[in-house]
Amino acid sequence: MIGKARCPNCPGCVLSVGAVTAQSNGRPGMDRADVIVVGAGYAGLSAARALRRSGVDVLVLEASARIGGRVHTERIEGGWAIDLGAQSISQGHTAFAALAQECGAKTFTPPTAGRSVLLEGTTHRTFKGQHPPLPPLVLAVLAQAMWRLERLAARIDTERPWAAPGADRFDAMTAATWLRRNLPERRARNLAEVMIGEELSVDVGSVSMLALLTAIRASGGVESGTAAESVLELFVEGADAPALAIAEELGEDLRLDSPVTSIQRLADGVLVGGAFGAVRGERVIVAVPPTLAGRIDYDPPLPAARDHLTQRVPMGSVLKVFAVYERPFWRDLGRTGQAFNLSGPIPVIFDASRPGGPGCLGALIPGRAAHRLAELPAATRRSTVLAEFARAFGRVALAPIDWREKAWAEDPYCRGGYNAYFPPGVLTSVGHALRTPVGPIHWAGSETATEWSGYIEGAIRSGDRAAAEVLGGLSITAGA
Amino acid sequence: MIGKARCPNCPGCVLSVGAVTAQSNGRPGMDRADVIVVGAGYAGLSAARALRRSGVDVLVLEASARIGGRVHTERIEGGWAIDLGAQSISQGHTAFAALAQECGAKTFTPPTAGRSVLLEGTTHRTFKGQHPPLPPLVLAVLAQAMWRLERLAARIDTERPWAAPGADRFDAMTAATWLRRNLPERRARNLAEVMIGEELSVDVGSVSMLALLTAIRASGGVESGTAAESVLELFVEGADAPALAIAEELGEDLRLDSPVTSIQRLADGVLVGGAFGAVRGERVIVAVPPTLAGRIDYDPPLPAARDHLTQRVPMGSVLKVFAVYERPFWRDLGRTGQAFNLSGPIPVIFDASRPGGPGCLGALIPGRAAHRLAELPAATRRSTVLAEFARAFGRVALAPIDWREKAWAEDPYCRGGYNAYFPPGVLTSVGHALRTPVGPIHWAGSETATEWSGYIEGAIRSGDRAAAEVLGGLSITAGA
Repeated sequence: MIGKARCPNCPGCVLSVGAVTAQSNGRPGMDRADVIVVGAGYAGLSAARALRRSGVDVLVLEASARIGGRVHTERIEGGWAIDLGAQSISQGHTAFAALAQECGAKTFTPPTAGRSVLLEGTTHRTFKGQHPPLPPLVLAVLAQAMWRLERLAARIDTERPWAAPGADRFDAMTAATWLRRNLPERRARNLAEVMIGEELSVDVGSVSMLALLTAIRASGGVESGTAAESVLELFVEGADAPALAIAEELGEDLRLDSPVTSIQRLADGVLVGGAFGAVRGERVIVAVPPTLAGRIDYDPPLPAARDHLTQRVPMGSVLKVFAVYERPFWRDLGRTGQAFNLSGPIPVIFDASRPGGPGCLGALIPGRAAHRLAELPAATRRSTVLAEFARAFGRVALAPIDWREKAWAEDPYCRGGYNAYFPPGVLTSVGHALRTPVGPIHWAGSETATEWSGYIEGAIRSGDRAAAEVLGGLSITAGA
Repeated sequence: MIGKARCPNCPGCVLSVGAVTAQSNGRPGMDRADVIVVGAGYAGLSAARALRRSGVDVLVLEASARIGGRVHTERIEGGWAIDLGAQSISQGHTAFAALAQECGAKTFTPPTAGRSVLLEGTTHRTFKGQHPPLPPLVLAVLAQAMWRLERLAARIDTERPWAAPGADRFDAMTAATWLRRNLPERRARNLAEVMIGEELSVDVGSVSMLALLTAIRASGGVESGTAAESVLELFVEGADAPALAIAEELGEDLRLDSPVTSIQRLADGVLVGGAFGAVRGERVIVAVPPTLAGRIDYDPPLPAARDHLTQRVPMGSVLKVFAVYERPFWRDLGRTGQAFNLSGPIPVIFDASRPGGPGCLGALIPGRAAHRLAELPAATRRSTVLAEFARAFGRVALAPIDWREKAWAEDPYCRGGYNAYFPPGVLTSVGHALRTPVGPIHWAGSETATEWSGYIEGAIRSGDRAAAEVLGGLSITAGA
């Protein structure tokens, strides 16, 4: 079923055939729906799906020409998938796993046979398993810090992190400050910074320590929340497969190329507007990250705390790159395709080859490094990254047959990724406005999730939660 | 002249009589101007004034029904001014002083005769002069910390704070972290936190240490940048007097009630749009704070670094309140009207009475406390504040004849105040995008000033700087 809905080059687009025109949805006069959903990422799509299954008439408005939000699958020659955005499903991602299974989306675990690479300054070492070959002292202090993080995170209620013991103190410092104090050993700290950067898509010097603890708690602990985790799975046909299945279900109730620029609260509902026109609804679920939600013009204006939340929770930055090779040549050399670099511009390299497909090495560059690399000319950026791939896996890596990249801050309808982040002082001042509905306006999006926030799993759960909120309060009679 | 332009209750509004309609400005077809200025705060007004005086055809579009931006003067009975926003002019404010003089706006220095009050827990003490009566040890550690701040700030080039020695380290910590380390003495730290909070309108736990040092440097040092400074002057007729004079000069080239929602870059200029229609120009100066500039829809989208700057530089929060009394009764008691509270909800109280006018006590409550107070019912908020006024100056303070307040985060076209602030990690990642023009789009506003940023003085200088940029690059023939 999913296969049928795809176009081989740009699968998101096929949906626009039936959905792009702002027609009246079968009703006379002004467009209307019981519930309008803003954004067709996993949060918005999940909310729409849940509402529809409860008989509610729903309309999803997506700004861009594709669905998926921060999930963005491209096809390379041979039709193989490349995930330029969020890509994985892992232990604890129960909602995503159930959705994937229901949609028949196949997953696979990248092979872990072989040795991984650790780069540090000019040294190059290989190692087996998940733990880089650092001196016992370094590993010991790292283990101790992780134990401390675990213990601090365990005290947090992710519904109200601002009420945790020591919340004010932890929210008044950056994660970098905590790490400097608790990991004075430089190499251990570097490794921790790399892992946190990869997880949060922001430098440790930008994010609140309370927000880091909340993120750890929301992903079930330090170990299960780190990129080094081994039980991670990727999607054979790309991480957007389940999203495409929901979109197909929605049919004409999903409209692409429809950026929402205004939300007006009426006596008996909402009026959601943009260049596409205006749609009336009883409720609206805004399923985009806080900073993008803040760019919508609200009439009447939002309460101050909610407005300040949108001002104060910016997007992280990530540059995601893939080099494609005839075959996964590193496997012949006994390598996993995974590399860590504690001092270079590319902190982590990973194997994203599909089973039976060409070789594919990927890298995520978060934070300031992403901005710096994105500002380089394309050829310089490519050669900079490939030089690092070659340092890890040999000169063969210098000559890929294809190259794909996405600087998420440049996506006009994401403007960053993969997560939004909480700078110091935000959770304890306006954090309570993150999920609180404003009249008929409800908020979804991975950032609003209390479990697995920042993951596709969190997005799905947030959509389900917003749908439940709406169903609980809706006065409309279910059904068109 | 200025007096004539005023209406006694709401002086901003009188201007709208001539300026509110989006007429074609005397030219046929679509509206146009050589340069369009977005925002009629002191930054936008100063830019427009400078351009006009160079013969450039300019049009100022202001979103709200008043001019002034974060300067907002109201009148109480008898026509006396109350400044709900920025209010003062002080030593070093040379551009503002020159403008005020040119406009004939009269200033005065609040009397300093008498004793001020220090509240701390349940204790109430009075003191003469600027320095609260704290134990010599406390004052000594405070002096030492101020000396350190001064020395660190002196190393910063406010044009490029990210290039200062130790910039990465100071930008990876909050000001709270630095104060905890360098001011372990609790009372000294409380006093420093109060003074910084009053200056930056944000809690020390939210702002980057590098940003604090930059702000200190931009205001000429610790002493001249603190609220306790004695050479501060207020405006007899309100701080908007010079702004009104510029607005009068601009006449129909200033339009109120014209929120700009889109800026399109064309091959040969810009198209600036909103519900009012669209205006063509050769250049545009966006003279609003970064977060509000980020809510405009740009086509093509802005470069990633500039977009992230707008995401990452939110507004501070401040609640400003005034209680008006028949006369300044505290003077009879030998009090200055100034009070400091190191542990209560109202950190500073000050005398804002106009010479010969009724008594007027004001207070600025910044940061989280502003959000918390603003969320209380109006009557509770008023009684909470008045109870603090009474603790400082006696029970007479409980019964004012008038009460004025403004929670700046609730102003739909300011959404915070009085300053924007830089959380950790922003200056060193995307700070370079703060002033850099994007094609024909130039950026003004107090936050972009390299001297006195966050003050009216900085706003004026930023407007003059943006005007100079435009004049330097403009291809148009001066004159309509």
